[in-house]
Amino acid sequence: MSGSVYGTIFSITTWGESHGNGVGVVVDGCPAGLPLNEDIIQPYLNRRKPGQTKYSTPRKEEDKVNILSGVFEGKTTGTPISLVVFNENQKSGDYSKISTAYRPGHADYCFDQKYGFRDYRGGGRSSGRETIGRVAAGAIANAILNELGIKIQTYTKSIGPITINPDKTDFNLISKSPLYMPDLEASEKAEEYLLQQMQDHNSAGGIIECVVSGMPVGIGEPVFDKLDASLAKAVMSIGAVKGFEIGEGFKASTMTGAENNDPFTIDDKNAIRKTSNHAGGILGGMSDGSNILLRVAIKPTPSIFKTQQTVNETKEKVEIKIQGRHDPIIVPRAVVVVESMVAITLVDQLFMGMTSQLNRIKDFYKG
Amino acid sequence: MSGSVYGTIFSITTWGESHGNGVGVVVDGCPAGLPLNEDIIQPYLNRRKPGQTKYSTPRKEEDKVNILSGVFEGKTTGTPISLVVFNENQKSGDYSKISTAYRPGHADYCFDQKYGFRDYRGGGRSSGRETIGRVAAGAIANAILNELGIKIQTYTKSIGPITINPDKTDFNLISKSPLYMPDLEASEKAEEYLLQQMQDHNSAGGIIECVVSGMPVGIGEPVFDKLDASLAKAVMSIGAVKGFEIGEGFKASTMTGAENNDPFTIDDKNAIRKTSNHAGGILGGMSDGSNILLRVAIKPTPSIFKTQQTVNETKEKVEIKIQGRHDPIIVPRAVVVVESMVAITLVDQLFMGMTSQLNRIKDFYKG
Amino acid sequence: MSGSVYGTIFSITTWGESHGNGVGVVVDGCPAGLPLNEDIIQPYLNRRKPGQTKYSTPRKEEDKVNILSGVFEGKTTGTPISLVVFNENQKSGDYSKISTAYRPGHADYCFDQKYGFRDYRGGGRSSGRETIGRVAAGAIANAILNELGIKIQTYTKSIGPITINPDKTDFNLISKSPLYMPDLEASEKAEEYLLQQMQDHNSAGGIIECVVSGMPVGIGEPVFDKLDASLAKAVMSIGAVKGFEIGEGFKASTMTGAENNDPFTIDDKNAIRKTSNHAGGILGGMSDGSNILLRVAIKPTPSIFKTQQTVNETKEKVEIKIQGRHDPIIVPRAVVVVESMVAITLVDQLFMGMTSQLNRIKDFYKG
Amino acid sequence: MSGSVYGTIFSITTWGESHGNGVGVVVDGCPAGLPLNEDIIQPYLNRRKPGQTKYSTPRKEEDKVNILSGVFEGKTTGTPISLVVFNENQKSGDYSKISTAYRPGHADYCFDQKYGFRDYRGGGRSSGRETIGRVAAGAIANAILNELGIKIQTYTKSIGPITINPDKTDFNLISKSPLYMPDLEASEKAEEYLLQQMQDHNSAGGIIECVVSGMPVGIGEPVFDKLDASLAKAVMSIGAVKGFEIGEGFKASTMTGAENNDPFTIDDKNAIRKTSNHAGGILGGMSDGSNILLRVAIKPTPSIFKTQQTVNETKEKVEIKIQGRHDPIIVPRAVVVVESMVAITLVDQLFMGMTSQLNRIKDFYKG
Repeated sequence: MSGSVYGTIFSITTWGESHGNGVGVVVDGCPAGLPLNEDIIQPYLNRRKPGQTKYSTPRKEEDKVNILSGVFEGKTTGTPISLVVFNENQKSGDYSKISTAYRPGHADYCFDQKYGFRDYRGGGRSSGRETIGRVAAGAIANAILNELGIKIQTYTKSIGPITINPDKTDFNLISKSPLYMPDLEASEKAEEYLLQQMQDHNSAGGIIECVVSGMPVGIGEPVFDKLDASLAKAVMSIGAVKGFEIGEGFKASTMTGAENNDPFTIDDKNAIRKTSNHAGGILGGMSDGSNILLRVAIKPTPSIFKTQQTVNETKEKVEIKIQGRHDPIIVPRAVVVVESMVAITLVDQLFMGMTSQLNRIKDFYKG
Repeated sequence: MSGSVYGTIFSITTWGESHGNGVGVVVDGCPAGLPLNEDIIQPYLNRRKPGQTKYSTPRKEEDKVNILSGVFEGKTTGTPISLVVFNENQKSGDYSKISTAYRPGHADYCFDQKYGFRDYRGGGRSSGRETIGRVAAGAIANAILNELGIKIQTYTKSIGPITINPDKTDFNLISKSPLYMPDLEASEKAEEYLLQQMQDHNSAGGIIECVVSGMPVGIGEPVFDKLDASLAKAVMSIGAVKGFEIGEGFKASTMTGAENNDPFTIDDKNAIRKTSNHAGGILGGMSDGSNILLRVAIKPTPSIFKTQQTVNETKEKVEIKIQGRHDPIIVPRAVVVVESMVAITLVDQLFMGMTSQLNRIKDFYKG
Repeated sequence: MSGSVYGTIFSITTWGESHGNGVGVVVDGCPAGLPLNEDIIQPYLNRRKPGQTKYSTPRKEEDKVNILSGVFEGKTTGTPISLVVFNENQKSGDYSKISTAYRPGHADYCFDQKYGFRDYRGGGRSSGRETIGRVAAGAIANAILNELGIKIQTYTKSIGPITINPDKTDFNLISKSPLYMPDLEASEKAEEYLLQQMQDHNSAGGIIECVVSGMPVGIGEPVFDKLDASLAKAVMSIGAVKGFEIGEGFKASTMTGAENNDPFTIDDKNAIRKTSNHAGGILGGMSDGSNILLRVAIKPTPSIFKTQQTVNETKEKVEIKIQGRHDPIIVPRAVVVVESMVAITLVDQLFMGMTSQLNRIKDFYKG
Repeated sequence: MSGSVYGTIFSITTWGESHGNGVGVVVDGCPAGLPLNEDIIQPYLNRRKPGQTKYSTPRKEEDKVNILSGVFEGKTTGTPISLVVFNENQKSGDYSKISTAYRPGHADYCFDQKYGFRDYRGGGRSSGRETIGRVAAGAIANAILNELGIKIQTYTKSIGPITINPDKTDFNLISKSPLYMPDLEASEKAEEYLLQQMQDHNSAGGIIECVVSGMPVGIGEPVFDKLDASLAKAVMSIGAVKGFEIGEGFKASTMTGAENNDPFTIDDKNAIRKTSNHAGGILGGMSDGSNILLRVAIKPTPSIFKTQQTVNETKEKVEIKIQGRHDPIIVPRAVVVVESMVAITLVDQLFMGMTSQLNRIKDFYKG
């Protein structure tokens, strides 16, 4: 499919542009019987909503979700769930001036080459608003994971050069930081760094980390649909993501086998456990029972207020100065987007994982 | 599908275990008219063949490819191409001793949990031999790319702590280094480092880099099937890969927007070009006409000859000392595997990219 | 995916229940540059709209389509097109009485068994309203086909025992018949037959025929994705369809090879043509340049006003008498649904068909 | 994918031409723990093997299956199962004379148009030998179904104008008829009819019927992946199939609702049952607990020994007289092919059906 459908059994189809009528998603393959209403989904959308801190665009958008199908008497029915957020605050005037110039770091030029023309208002389909559908679907995936005892923690690990200190990290602090950092000291330093970038008409990037606990062992398909490979695609498909790591990630490339291997042991509940987790919870593409640990690199916002050199559609060199309302950093609002893509991927793989053993299929059907 | 099929239009299905009768691949969706025979494919397999240097397992395997279908009178017919390499050197005796113990860093435990039991000989489906099918298919994908003027260079960027020096890098040197490093000075230092690890009964990891030149602009689907996301999945699906970067990758997270944005300009052939390439050749998930630049982190070989702590299938703590013939480093042999997965992904996305504009479709069918 | 996504490159995702907020479709993979607005789509929806003749339910529904995304300045942009029809006339009171009884010929019992419970109002997802998304997407597919010079004629071939006479068939008459029969004499007889069924509190079925002209040769993939196999799935996925034929269909089973084979010849434009078309325009799963000819059997409407024997959720035998507003025949309103599924399938296969020859791909990319 | 991959969770990839090195299939998604060896698969291949009666081609081919992967110690491991039958009896000389002429009723012309050229020996990929991969995979699917208590009976219903008499039909007789007809009287008449066709250098078609018993209720996905739609595609993808019916099929189009609806009742084991089965075991695209009943129309063999009018590649009108060894009827050998495609489809849909209810998923993972 041409890129707007994701997933095999639990699949999502997103649609919508920043300055069209709305954005939305159809979730297919959600099992029947899951309690669901708008109040369960809205908090996830609120986490990515703009205008909540001075580090995000001052646009005010309510991003109110509507369930159009798939829920009856407060429960999912097993049929596709259509969710829509209508656009309200489409100040397209801001964009007219740059409509013919290709913004550096943006998809404008590629869109024109691929499709012959583009919806130049606010990035069109490449806008950050495209992620609303992902987050709404992610809320449903998270609700399913919760029913299975699986929990995802996602947070900002670093902003520019400022990184959280593992010794001062406390997941309970995440929501207390305007930047979703679980170390408030680092969070304050990061705020100072951001204010400096804003003053300089510049922008910043950062790293998001995600920890999944409670996964059953053996989820993920051993060759092309490895769990880590699927997670990599899921989060790399978010705009502005430039890198992905599982466990030690790039650091593993400098370690020795003796350092990087995680020994197995028997814990006091007589269960098999690893005594370390360099692998990040995945071996051979399958979950190994440890926490899944992944990291994502986010580039600095390409929309900056400095004057930039570029060209326009008629192949003239021009200078542009981007106007309008833009986030000086994408990271804090992207935290819930990463979490959503992880959740959607885990659900799909958990569903795929139900057919690996004949005896378990026989139990299911002949019970 | 359960993980052994990859690709949408140009798709590959791999099969085979390290100690079964053979390994192979079926390539579906290859266009008709491509010149093809075993001699075109074999050199790619030779690049991953063991026993060529002292840094790879001394197993001697010819890995001779056979074309079973899809080629007639020296050209592809458009029907599926079945390729097989029969296994020759299956010394399974080596593995019997460790068949009930879970090797640290390997998939043994996950396999048992997922499938109820496993083929314990040499890793079974999780063996490095699984990549033979990928490389054989990659040779075909590379042949298609060559016809379109697209070229892939892949090489070892670092081994353990030893990294190539950009100033001394020359792609012509790649094949002169037993480690596929394009900087022979770094290559020699890396050899010393590896010999030390071997003496210590230990192993090493490294980083592989890949540069694609000649890509048309606008390849990649803007949302979930972004070109970089698809490449990420492709290479993360190779065993032992722990991280993926495009362009500046994780470094981008510490840069500012002004530093990271690539300005556009008009070159002396009146074409639009970027004056830098921090993005790594992809914007908004689509190729931007610059070289595509990606990096892959490979963990150290988990099979080491030191004694390790682990548990067995009956939940006893045991010590194991892995015997047999194992690579002290996977990186050099993985170079062609990374290149293959990149090639396969590019072909599939190039094929997907033919339907983005109505006028071009009309030209194709009514032209 | 769990059944609400259809197509590989040109894909549609439908959603919605009869008594929810609305029904809709997301069309992904539509090329950029196709002129599109609501006025192009609405006439197709009007062809399936109820309340237009006495042979369809007297429910009045406007079925007004809204384009929510994917169109900019009157043309498709290449991004997903989200279409919605909001429900207006949801008189669910009618259904409460039968909510616990399983209606014969309906999916009620299967839904309960599959999902544990169901939205009992008007059939929920199994309602005929589910086809609105198909028809809206079909309008887009038809617009693409028209640009390529491909035309689909679809009509009622028979109703109950009344069949059109080939000698009196004139496609210009289709829209003059309230039953979409291209033979007005047969149409009148069929009306009489239907009135009789309505008087008897009974219902009727029929056969829909579809003729596609202008198809290029060689469309369809030779093994599992044969053009006829794909068309069979497409139209068999419409509720109430019980049979599918291509060309002579079941009659071919009684013919000899000499009778059924279509000889090839050279026509006066020096083109290769078949002198007959028993095959129905498809050989070996690929279009052969003749008209594609297919037929679809539609069962009689299961909702009849006679008293029927059945059981309820608590396993009691009960009698039910269906109330409300139901079509005595589905056929005339299903004509445009069949046409839509055919159109969607043809577009997807035409897009798949662009990569069969290396030389044509090289021409496309290297100009 | 381009047509040689079928299935979503339980998927098969077939390859091979009639006169290449062999034909085969890779089965992905087979659960671990299924007893499997060549002796379980071979009897299915023997049912389609040529040269067993005078009504099939006198070619002698052993069609000996080899398992190359996916089985360890007599059981499937959950990894892909690669099966191959090497070609032995490739008398390509027979075909050289007609290599440039397009055989009526065959895919030659379409192949040339689609791919630019073709493997003219024996039909290449469009040969009946392509079905060997389907049957080998079908044997595995059937083994899975047997473990779940599901049984498929497939047989010849009619040959040319000769149809079995329901009153004289006894499934135990199927293997006693050289034509796989469960009514020996009809079988003898059909033999006479076939001998007449052979004498006339002509050929015959027929109808195959298939009955599935033991299916759980609720299998099939309600919209595009309806069970009957999926079965239609599966069997229509077999070469020479021209029509598909479920339950009453085309006859339903002439029945009234009162006649065609199947009343529900409670049987003496307190289970819900239908008192008739006009629907053929599927309602709303889901299995309803009754036997699934489907029929398939097979055209007469297009390879006949009469002189035929056609054209050649250089657009000249020519006469051809097909030589070589051809079946005067395809039906008896196609019986096991239909059964195989049905079995593969049922397994895939049974696997998809495991995620329809949240509570059952919770039981599976937390149970």
